Amino acid sequence: MNNALIQLNSEYAAAIDDDRLEDWPAFFLDDCFYRVTTSNNYQKKMQAGLIYADSRDMLRDRVLSLRKANVYEAQRYRHIVSLPRIIKSDADGLLHVETPFVVMRIVRNGATDVFATGRYIDQVATVQANALLKSREVVCDSARIDTLLAMPL
Amino acid sequence: MNNALIQLNSEYAAAIDDDRLEDWPAFFLDDCFYRVTTSNNYQKKMQAGLIYADSRDMLRDRVLSLRKANVYEAQRYRHIVSLPRIIKSDADGLLHVETPFVVMRIVRNGATDVFATGRYIDQVATVQANALLKSREVVCDSARIDTLLAMPL
Amino acid sequence: MNNALIQLNSEYAAAIDDDRLEDWPAFFLDDCFYRVTTSNNYQKKMQAGLIYADSRDMLRDRVLSLRKANVYEAQRYRHIVSLPRIIKSDADGLLHVETPFVVMRIVRNGATDVFATGRYIDQVATVQANALLKSREVVCDSARIDTLLAMPL
Repeated sequence: MNNALIQLNSEYAAAIDDDRLEDWPAFFLDDCFYRVTTSNNYQKKMQAGLIYADSRDMLRDRVLSLRKANVYEAQRYRHIVSLPRIIKSDADGLLHVETPFVVMRIVRNGATDVFATGRYIDQVATVQANALLKSREVVCDSARIDTLLAMPL
Repeated sequence: MNNALIQLNSEYAAAIDDDRLEDWPAFFLDDCFYRVTTSNNYQKKMQAGLIYADSRDMLRDRVLSLRKANVYEAQRYRHIVSLPRIIKSDADGLLHVETPFVVMRIVRNGATDVFATGRYIDQVATVQANALLKSREVVCDSARIDTLLAMPL
Repeated sequence: MNNALIQLNSEYAAAIDDDRLEDWPAFFLDDCFYRVTTSNNYQKKMQAGLIYADSRDMLRDRVLSLRKANVYEAQRYRHIVSLPRIIKSDADGLLHVETPFVVMRIVRNGATDVFATGRYIDQVATVQANALLKSREVVCDSARIDTLLAMPL
């Protein structure tokens, strides 16, 4: 399974970093959950998130909104994904996985800074040999993550 | 073996980043070696280290001391572990592995900086299908690593 | 194949970070292509690169030049390589792979900064169970990469 997890995570990161956002919902099941939150809010079990979706259709809508808003992306992102950690496997094959990440931001003048660090808390299903996300919670370490965050992480 | 190495490294990093320090000694054999040092000292074969232990009991003692000292951790850490590199395998199955890492530090006000970069120089034994550390030397690239370093890396 | 890709990438990074530059050409086929460029130039299909070579002999020459120039390396590098992403496999077994990276620079006084982020765009051949580079394009995200860049990335 590790190879499928590596492929899932590397393709997911590349879709965002290459600005192929339309490919992003395809990493999820139809019936899925996605949110971006902070470590503090995650620990307090607060439901709110900087980005929130509970179906793949909502993810698609989000991408459409981003494209319509025609946000001029003066910056690029670079995800560096660490090693995935399998926590447990359910009887139905659903995997619980956590994967740390750091996202670097490269602004137009060329400066590079650390945009976000955190971990993906995932439930991963296997559908015809492909790993797909049933749930991905993006838990950012810092509370200072930009509340105007538009791009998925 | 790569899957076991990936699992070992990802679980080790998570135990520290999640502040589950009590789980940390369990990644080592009873009879083990651990130290944190700098690249300069490592090259000069200097024995001293910022943190030093030559048994799992010493690792447990260290965790107890940290908890008793009740150090108020105003910061969080995030390990990003790169790909493990198998250097050689001994006749008895002991693996010699090096793995680069970067540790980001997130301070309470939310700022994130690079806390340390370096490599783990490991001897890894396989015990009942689990990879365990016989030896881990944490060799930090910079000589500027905080000499008050309390947390394991 | 993932294990061979992991080994290739981890050994490649270690050769540079350990200043074993003489080992660097051995990761390539005799007939190979290597360049370092920026994302902007890559998208515009500009041929120029900060470093350019179209054979392993040219890579060896470059290492010799670096050693003769006796560049005093006041800094160290640390590559953190993310998960490799297999894009496709040709009929002859050639793999097309992209792998993100971040390179940290540690200067002599101990300060650490982000030197470069980007991705390796590779063509990887399998020769007697070893993964070797037929082509590696190092595409840096920022246009601000040091134009005096001497070390390979």
